Amino acid sequence: MRIIIDAMGGDHAPQAPVEAGCKAVSELDVDIIFVGKKEVIEKELAKYKFDRSRVEIVNADEVVTNHDEPAKAVRSKKNSSIVVAANLLKNGGGDALLSMGNTGVLLAAGLLIVGRIKGVLRPALATLLPSARGPKMLIDAGANTNCKAENLVQFAIIGSIYMKNVMGISNPTVGLMSNGEEEGKGDELTKETYPLLKKAPINFVGNVEGRDVMQGTTDVITCDGFVGNVILKTVEGMGAVVGNMVKDMFTSSVLSKIGAVFVLNSLKEFKRSMDYREYGGAPLLGTKRPVIKGHGSSDAMAVFSAIKQAKKFVETNIIDEIIGQVSNGGKIK
Amino acid sequence: MRIIIDAMGGDHAPQAPVEAGCKAVSELDVDIIFVGKKEVIEKELAKYKFDRSRVEIVNADEVVTNHDEPAKAVRSKKNSSIVVAANLLKNGGGDALLSMGNTGVLLAAGLLIVGRIKGVLRPALATLLPSARGPKMLIDAGANTNCKAENLVQFAIIGSIYMKNVMGISNPTVGLMSNGEEEGKGDELTKETYPLLKKAPINFVGNVEGRDVMQGTTDVITCDGFVGNVILKTVEGMGAVVGNMVKDMFTSSVLSKIGAVFVLNSLKEFKRSMDYREYGGAPLLGTKRPVIKGHGSSDAMAVFSAIKQAKKFVETNIIDEIIGQVSNGGKIK
Repeated sequence: MRIIIDAMGGDHAPQAPVEAGCKAVSELDVDIIFVGKKEVIEKELAKYKFDRSRVEIVNADEVVTNHDEPAKAVRSKKNSSIVVAANLLKNGGGDALLSMGNTGVLLAAGLLIVGRIKGVLRPALATLLPSARGPKMLIDAGANTNCKAENLVQFAIIGSIYMKNVMGISNPTVGLMSNGEEEGKGDELTKETYPLLKKAPINFVGNVEGRDVMQGTTDVITCDGFVGNVILKTVEGMGAVVGNMVKDMFTSSVLSKIGAVFVLNSLKEFKRSMDYREYGGAPLLGTKRPVIKGHGSSDAMAVFSAIKQAKKFVETNIIDEIIGQVSNGGKIK
Repeated sequence: MRIIIDAMGGDHAPQAPVEAGCKAVSELDVDIIFVGKKEVIEKELAKYKFDRSRVEIVNADEVVTNHDEPAKAVRSKKNSSIVVAANLLKNGGGDALLSMGNTGVLLAAGLLIVGRIKGVLRPALATLLPSARGPKMLIDAGANTNCKAENLVQFAIIGSIYMKNVMGISNPTVGLMSNGEEEGKGDELTKETYPLLKKAPINFVGNVEGRDVMQGTTDVITCDGFVGNVILKTVEGMGAVVGNMVKDMFTSSVLSKIGAVFVLNSLKEFKRSMDYREYGGAPLLGTKRPVIKGHGSSDAMAVFSAIKQAKKFVETNIIDEIIGQVSNGGKIK
């Protein structure tokens, strides 16, 4: 299996993707194709020991920035690492694509280059969030705004397929994000979506609310990408603020520093449970081949988790199952 | 000044509202009118010492439950504490109304009984959320779904007036909740709202994202009530989960219990900064007279904070200023 990694994307590129890629060659039995500035990658590769015959570099000189308009960047920056990588994936030069770079550009490349599965109306970004009951999926986490009811139904279906195959959850439960638990609660979109979800081939349990995100009430939460993006960033932002508070709590005085020694193990456990790095990346679901968005701030450990996830994405038959479900009647009504 | 308190609403009613009301009589120089089952309130009042001449009870026998459809409950349960209280407020029998009961029913009573200020398109629920930079306002936090651009602009204006008068912030900054910082980011609603906010008589600083909620980037965040409700409940839910994690961290072993002793002060500080009870209630802004929604789980301390807030709401000239702003041209374009 060959995993294509955008070596230039993310806050810690090229160090984090290259380090994680080399580790993956040794530990995960995969081949890695790094895409980016060849010289830079070579220099980085020299730091690690691994089976060099399993690593390939595909040169890409252009750089996409956060200021690039996504669709325009994909069309005009043909030699950027993300566009070269997406074309490689499309043409069978690799089995999955992982990038820590600009989300919008990766989504555009997934849509415009890799392409939608026939019958999938709008591919969605699926994020795994930590919760009191383990990692749960939020879909769509930001690929699509102004969704229609049938989009949310498809998100629920393809999200369920992913959770079953990659996370090993049989018959995953699905909740519809709303502003109240009762069936009648919601805005126009969710009120229209609710009855369609009841008829869909999923384990739909009803509306969920914001508090269910961290409580992990359902395995999958389906929502419009605007709402999903707001939820994801609210949780991330709160995690950062609370993390700092806890840190301050243990460093504010000599006494509290002593206290920290006593709770060191619990503190580590707490930090790990809040750590997105354990959960890998966010798959873009609904494209013809596997595309995974790693967090922009990913360190090597986080990239390694995302590579593991990409491998599982390829090994399980998610895309075939999505094809089977969405073409089975096409548009779900 | 006379504050009307729905003595029957909330998880800790009638104990919490009655205890807080009695404390307010003694400490805040206000008169209190309790609305609810007279015998029950009398029995509760007997527990406290206060100037009895400053407390009145208005009997209301019916009970509104969480299963009642709000508008229907307001129309049919004429003798419920919330409907009786709203009519009292409307008819000048008190200067502000505070309820910890069913949010939907209180909103319906505010709209249908107390009434909108002329020119206010849709009154909004304004919540104060804790942040790294102190309490900040999220408006609308759940009163209105399927908002239009001019609704979000009015929320920003009336939210700013409240933050200036009650929270003492001069020229409060306003952010538009979106899925990206740049002007072009958002869904149809926010893209339409952005240019209107630039022209509005407020200190608009641009789009904000979910992570800005807890970072407290702006004093006011304006958004559709569906989105606001999801944010509010996500933050509350995460607060509860993190709170439990921190608790577990300090009780998991003998060692960590010892550690807790050393960080006790910091721990208390941490808990307080996450504590909604410090911030009082959520004002319903845009009604002709002050209506405040206290949190359903409010204890006496939280109700007391909300009474303080209600007093400040009445003392400052918020409603006059809202009237001035919204009638000045009426619908903002």
